[in-house]
Amino acid sequence: MYLELDGNGPLQAQLIRALKAAVLGGRTAHGERLPPTRQLARELGVSRNTVLLAYEQLRAEGFIEGRIGSGSYVTPPLRALQPPDTGEAPLPPQSEFARRGRRYHDHEHMAGRTVPGMRYAFQYGVPMANPALATAWARELAHAAAYTPPGYPPAQGLPALREAVCDYLARRRGVVAAPEDVFIVAGTQQAVALAARVLLDPGDVAVLEEPHYSALRELLQIHGARVRTVPVDAEGLCCDLLPQPAPKLACVTPSHQFPSGALMSLPRRLALLEYAHRHGCWVLEDDYDGEFRYDGRPLAALRSLDRHGRVVYIGTFSKAVFPALRLGYLVAPPGLRTDFLNAKWQDDFGSPAIEQAALARFIADGGFERHLRRAARALRERREALLEGLRATVGERLEVGDSRAGMHLVAWWRGHDAADGDALIAHARTRGLALYPIAPYYLEPPDRAGLLLGFASLGTAEIREAVALFARCLDEMEGKRAAAPP
Amino acid sequence: MYLELDGNGPLQAQLIRALKAAVLGGRTAHGERLPPTRQLARELGVSRNTVLLAYEQLRAEGFIEGRIGSGSYVTPPLRALQPPDTGEAPLPPQSEFARRGRRYHDHEHMAGRTVPGMRYAFQYGVPMANPALATAWARELAHAAAYTPPGYPPAQGLPALREAVCDYLARRRGVVAAPEDVFIVAGTQQAVALAARVLLDPGDVAVLEEPHYSALRELLQIHGARVRTVPVDAEGLCCDLLPQPAPKLACVTPSHQFPSGALMSLPRRLALLEYAHRHGCWVLEDDYDGEFRYDGRPLAALRSLDRHGRVVYIGTFSKAVFPALRLGYLVAPPGLRTDFLNAKWQDDFGSPAIEQAALARFIADGGFERHLRRAARALRERREALLEGLRATVGERLEVGDSRAGMHLVAWWRGHDAADGDALIAHARTRGLALYPIAPYYLEPPDRAGLLLGFASLGTAEIREAVALFARCLDEMEGKRAAAPP
Repeated sequence: MYLELDGNGPLQAQLIRALKAAVLGGRTAHGERLPPTRQLARELGVSRNTVLLAYEQLRAEGFIEGRIGSGSYVTPPLRALQPPDTGEAPLPPQSEFARRGRRYHDHEHMAGRTVPGMRYAFQYGVPMANPALATAWARELAHAAAYTPPGYPPAQGLPALREAVCDYLARRRGVVAAPEDVFIVAGTQQAVALAARVLLDPGDVAVLEEPHYSALRELLQIHGARVRTVPVDAEGLCCDLLPQPAPKLACVTPSHQFPSGALMSLPRRLALLEYAHRHGCWVLEDDYDGEFRYDGRPLAALRSLDRHGRVVYIGTFSKAVFPALRLGYLVAPPGLRTDFLNAKWQDDFGSPAIEQAALARFIADGGFERHLRRAARALRERREALLEGLRATVGERLEVGDSRAGMHLVAWWRGHDAADGDALIAHARTRGLALYPIAPYYLEPPDRAGLLLGFASLGTAEIREAVALFARCLDEMEGKRAAAPP
Repeated sequence: MYLELDGNGPLQAQLIRALKAAVLGGRTAHGERLPPTRQLARELGVSRNTVLLAYEQLRAEGFIEGRIGSGSYVTPPLRALQPPDTGEAPLPPQSEFARRGRRYHDHEHMAGRTVPGMRYAFQYGVPMANPALATAWARELAHAAAYTPPGYPPAQGLPALREAVCDYLARRRGVVAAPEDVFIVAGTQQAVALAARVLLDPGDVAVLEEPHYSALRELLQIHGARVRTVPVDAEGLCCDLLPQPAPKLACVTPSHQFPSGALMSLPRRLALLEYAHRHGCWVLEDDYDGEFRYDGRPLAALRSLDRHGRVVYIGTFSKAVFPALRLGYLVAPPGLRTDFLNAKWQDDFGSPAIEQAALARFIADGGFERHLRRAARALRERREALLEGLRATVGERLEVGDSRAGMHLVAWWRGHDAADGDALIAHARTRGLALYPIAPYYLEPPDRAGLLLGFASLGTAEIREAVALFARCLDEMEGKRAAAPP
């Protein structure tokens, strides 16, 4: 009997695999006697005990019969199988969902992705390095691990965390909600996925702002929604351009439009709610970084003006704490509680209990708001360093969007089209600077050179250096252009 | 101007809410001047600073205009809104998904739920109390919190954890998989939800074992699958009863059939794989507690025999560590990797990074397998205490299923129908003993009194006491029956 050990892992496991392969591959006949254990051990140069244990395992799994001492025989009813032919080639999509996934999501080219080997990156969505937070969080986790029941947490979320979220929303976002309206979810992405399942059948229309968060668009497209866009101006969504008939769902970022930075004005907020009420349209309010506002107290959420229960409000701890946490929340209209609970239960039974308990305590004992205040201070400094640097070195060449909140700015390179913008980005990479185009955040990008400048992940000194490098890249590009033949 | 403060939270927030309500409720006219700050402060008995800050906030949010000193006026274009009418009444379901959720999942009556106020519960799915594990886990979490990058983890899972899972699967479950085939998910529930999205369109047929895990059935029904069942006998799924035409998906628990306890025989395993290959049917192998086997080494998973890439293999840390963790894994056939990656990305962007890192280290440094060995030893003792107690006190009245693995037994009360079983369960509750019927785990329950006896959550001494109480309950029920008129 010829057996080849594959060299992976313990000898006994290798021998078991080799014996099974011989039996299943048809290299042994039914009823054939396996070599005696001593003989096989000698042939393979392994201990007899290894062979004995391997035979015992094959016997337990039904591959061989017989007792030690009287010989082991291959079990009769085994049909010989084909040799393995599981190729690496992708199969056709097996569901409409899978088909849409392949069509709409390219995980190789996600917007805002880290570029390896850069000295500086104006990346958006990367949190501040914060050793104090890491220390505080490690302490909260260790404490929660010791005190959290190990069983399944409630699918809707730990009551303590839902209460802490209600309290936080009332104080900081003007949202009055009961703990039974709050669902703890795995971040904004899951919140939107649940809302899509609860509110949209495949084929239903969803309206997005233009520009918008590209992952939101892809998520809805993969769900099967037909996505329409409505433009955004300095007052937020242009509500008079909302389509007739109305969509089933309109997704907005009123506190800090992503990525334009606009703050939705009060008249627009009221117009949107009125439209939603009149047409039975649902409003998804994504309040992703509404707590960071640099010209005063954060503004109340759209949900706080909602008199007719049309708003599904979602918030995340990815910006306020860090993305690795994968926790956020959704405030559902009371009439849809059961559906959101069913959807969360169906999706994952509930979010991890220890992290929920740690976060509840972090909020309740004040650590969270202390962290938010410190983070807002640091972000304000970084934003000012970026604005100041741009004014000093780049000047009028750049039109910087007037955003007074959040963790990024939008900047347009005056007099340059989208192709120039791509060339600038490519050039900056050769200089070790990662710049990020705004184009992926549009369904139909404008033919202008637009950038999204994230400032959360760089210290103020780094920002000054990165801006200087950015200005040099602009000089070089403009020099090239001036030098090029007309 | 009449303002009523609601007494919730800081005075300033109360005042802001009251002013907004007055403006939005139509109790102020457009262009009306708000009372001077000093006057309002005096009327309400609050500091003038509170009023100043509240006015400033209303100004920032666009409710009022004007400057401090020259008076504040209600902004003209505000349309008066209706008074709030967001009722608590459930709305009609807004999607087919929501409709199915209401039809198939009753979160008030989940199988196996904890019954409050019981002295003992033979509950299944509740982990062992394990202070040593809690301590080890707190240490791993605190370590991981200090060293894990705070950004978004890869949607597929941390490479270190995927490698640790591959290594574990090769050594303990006979499954040879590459890290790129492994997806870290939020437990079995998310694994199945992803598989349903990737493999099944609404209306497609999925086959379940009968009996089966009820949450699996509800999940698939909510997804929109048409569920058919195939009976299970002592050798596992009766493969010759698999339907023609074949379903799109067959869900099995070959290592330890849930809940019957049967081990799927090798001929049946090969027959199922052959059927799947011939008919292009997918096989979902749920290996939920295959590592706990009491008559030798755990048996290799069905996936280890799969030559044609038809098996989606899923495992969970809910049984091996604890359910509050919400982590599990899925091994996808190579041809469907992209689809599973898209589905996980669409669903939640990836599982929490710190818990993944902690688990990877726990597995890699050997703590996990040490824990598994200890847990298996404790479970073996508990199982023996339960079996011994039943033999000694209950005897022949109970037919105990021959399960040599896992964390529960199935027991049938001989000569009694389902109604007797329900009466026994109701009676036992009056004695402080929670018993769990097997009926919810059938699509069409048999008319026999069947129980699922979980033994993981009770110590051996408690098990002995619980069994004695159980025997007393049986005596009392049988006494009642004997005493009742024929």
